Amino acid sequence: MEKFLKQGKRKAVGNLHSMPALRCIKFEDNTLHLLDQRILPTHTAWIAHSDHIQVAESIRNMTVRGAPAIGVAAAYGMALAALNQADWSQAKQTLAESRPTAVNLFWALDRLDALTDKSPESVLAEAQAIEAEDLSMNHKIGESGATLVPEEATVLTICNTGSLATAGHGTALGIIRTAHQQGKVKHVYSCETRPRQQGLRLTAFELLHDKIPFHSIADSAAASLMRAGKIDFVVAGADRITANGDTANKIGTYMLAVLAHHHNIPFVIAAPSSTLDPNLPTGDHIPIEERDSTELTHAESIQIAPDNCPVYNPAFDVTPGTLITAIVTEQGILTPPFNIK
Amino acid sequence: MEKFLKQGKRKAVGNLHSMPALRCIKFEDNTLHLLDQRILPTHTAWIAHSDHIQVAESIRNMTVRGAPAIGVAAAYGMALAALNQADWSQAKQTLAESRPTAVNLFWALDRLDALTDKSPESVLAEAQAIEAEDLSMNHKIGESGATLVPEEATVLTICNTGSLATAGHGTALGIIRTAHQQGKVKHVYSCETRPRQQGLRLTAFELLHDKIPFHSIADSAAASLMRAGKIDFVVAGADRITANGDTANKIGTYMLAVLAHHHNIPFVIAAPSSTLDPNLPTGDHIPIEERDSTELTHAESIQIAPDNCPVYNPAFDVTPGTLITAIVTEQGILTPPFNIK
Repeated sequence: MEKFLKQGKRKAVGNLHSMPALRCIKFEDNTLHLLDQRILPTHTAWIAHSDHIQVAESIRNMTVRGAPAIGVAAAYGMALAALNQADWSQAKQTLAESRPTAVNLFWALDRLDALTDKSPESVLAEAQAIEAEDLSMNHKIGESGATLVPEEATVLTICNTGSLATAGHGTALGIIRTAHQQGKVKHVYSCETRPRQQGLRLTAFELLHDKIPFHSIADSAAASLMRAGKIDFVVAGADRITANGDTANKIGTYMLAVLAHHHNIPFVIAAPSSTLDPNLPTGDHIPIEERDSTELTHAESIQIAPDNCPVYNPAFDVTPGTLITAIVTEQGILTPPFNIK
Repeated sequence: MEKFLKQGKRKAVGNLHSMPALRCIKFEDNTLHLLDQRILPTHTAWIAHSDHIQVAESIRNMTVRGAPAIGVAAAYGMALAALNQADWSQAKQTLAESRPTAVNLFWALDRLDALTDKSPESVLAEAQAIEAEDLSMNHKIGESGATLVPEEATVLTICNTGSLATAGHGTALGIIRTAHQQGKVKHVYSCETRPRQQGLRLTAFELLHDKIPFHSIADSAAASLMRAGKIDFVVAGADRITANGDTANKIGTYMLAVLAHHHNIPFVIAAPSSTLDPNLPTGDHIPIEERDSTELTHAESIQIAPDNCPVYNPAFDVTPGTLITAIVTEQGILTPPFNIK
């Protein structure tokens, strides 16, 4: 664990401050602009929204994705409803029905609903606060997490946990960003993240944007990079973390945790504290969503697998807390043994 | 390792003998028929070859792939040359230039070149002997390897090592076939095998053909299946095996070996003895081919990754012999510590 403790001095990296931060949400001139994530990374387009119905449609059709980003978009949808003097309850319902499972969506809508002053100015200010708080939390996660990254580190990550999934900066990718800004990150390896390829599509897009040196790899290539001594630090996001530190995240995260353990490489989880679920004692209680087989059998609309190919396609896996070196939230760094309350 | 030693009685499986064995090579009526692997698994077509030039083209364009299968196809190409009274040396050169690196190709051509009687009957008989010997070796590998498979086993494998890569039956997939015929295999999980997806395309095709129950999975899902106790046995092929048992094979094989070790699951390598390379002391001496980035960045002809996405795409990894439970060849079962001569 020597690498892990080798924390270091910060170095300046050229041109950082001239680089505009990547965002997927912009509110300007009473219009919500969302970066269309359905066509990334090969095409970049912003879609303008002048009312809450358009915003609900863009959440539904995944123009915007990532739970924190969805929450921010929905908040601005309510601001548009207030600006347009739309019916408040109907607007809230329309947005609430856009995606059924994103917790941040309902949290954001309830927070706006609790405002005593629902004037356009007040609602817009609260939406801006929600966005600013998410961004601020991610920068705190980045600052804390970067202290764990060794100097001259080559960092491995999986899925997309960056500016495209949040109000900006990101969680696990936020740590990589902050550590890179401090001059501590020499290189990143980004796992493709089968089957939906969020790493190859979105994380690669973000790393190119920020000019952070990296290679995309097949998920199955991570092991041999570790064996070759080329990985100093592994960081991943989380969908839910139980009291004992067990962490549900994108399928393949547990694979990386076992491999990191075998090769004595730090394995760190990054997430906002809202991801902590101390009511669940262990990860055995987390239900694992199984997704459609076409995510594996088809590429875009082209069939790859044989007809009637049976597929097991779990979206998440659970990494036991015993394999996790640290859990980073905006509140700080948790270390094992985890006893989250 | 109890599971590993729990070898068992053989049970009959219905309808096995009514099922025609899958083959990718047929020689009938002075014509070589090759199953077109470029369009599998969504389309099945046989391509007829009446001279050695057509055979060389089909090796070059990967109508036939898999080193043993290429060797057999080239042998029949020489038989066609003899039947057509083509120039022997020119024919040999044409076939030798079809693929630069497949060792079995040159081995087969040299074996035919060594014949004192190069009459059409003699050359055809030798080509048929090469095919029959490869098939026989694979059945021996299957018989030996099946003794290692526990009763009621769920088996995990990677890539394609079956009838489509050999004269028939296969190596690692040959063990699964034989063990299934003995009633010992309850289920198979077949890794997709990114980036070229030989598992999802070809192994799934073979398992469906043989009515062996299975699911295709993303490579990254293997770890969580092991953690859930759903994998009893892992078997993979090999491209080269050094004196100490270090084994080069398709990228992801080392990942499976580490995961199997962590979960105390037997990890077995299957290959013909020609794969053994005792002249190399360890796997550190095996060069690892890096392949084109488009294998990862594109699906069919569709671009998935951002423009200029840097990719690290090694075709193989090396599994240290210390993580291998047994190496099965047609000569029997090798167990650690390996000292191959």
